[in-house]
Amino acid sequence: MAKSIFYHAGCPVCVSAEHDIVNLIGADNVELVHIGEDRNRIAEAEKAGVKSVPALLTPNGNVLHINFGASMADVKG
Amino acid sequence: MAKSIFYHAGCPVCVSAEHDIVNLIGADNVELVHIGEDRNRIAEAEKAGVKSVPALLTPNGNVLHINFGASMADVKG
Repeated sequence: MAKSIFYHAGCPVCVSAEHDIVNLIGADNVELVHIGEDRNRIAEAEKAGVKSVPALLTPNGNVLHINFGASMADVKG
Repeated sequence: MAKSIFYHAGCPVCVSAEHDIVNLIGADNVELVHIGEDRNRIAEAEKAGVKSVPALLTPNGNVLHINFGASMADVKG
C-alpha cells in the first residue's frame, strides 16, 4: 500500500491525532511531516489541498482534515 | 484490535471519508453507524464526544472529527 502523509505542526491536537492515526493505520503506512519545522513542504501540503493541520493525505489523494489544530495561515504566519 | 466506530449521516462528505477510512484501516476494523437512520445511537455518539459527522471514535476513546459534513444539531434537527 502506498503511504499516507500526516501533516502536522506540533500542536497538542496534532500530537494527539498523530498517535491515533499511527495506532490505526500503522507507523509503516504513514509519513509524518512537521510543516512547522520542515517549512519547505508547506507548498506541497497546500497543493495537495491541506487547509488546516493535522491532516492526513491518503494514498489516493484525498485530504482528511482531522479535528483542528491550526490553519495553514497560522502555520505560515 | 478493538473496533473503531465511524459515525456518519450519509452526506457526501461522510461517504467520501467513509471510503477513505475503510481503505486505510480495513472494513473489519471499523463499525459504520449511520446516525441519520439509526437515531437511537445519537446519544451514544454525543456521549463519546462526537460534535460533528463524519467522525471516527478510536478504540481508546478518542474522537477524530474528519472534514465536516454536518453538526450534531443538524443531524438531530
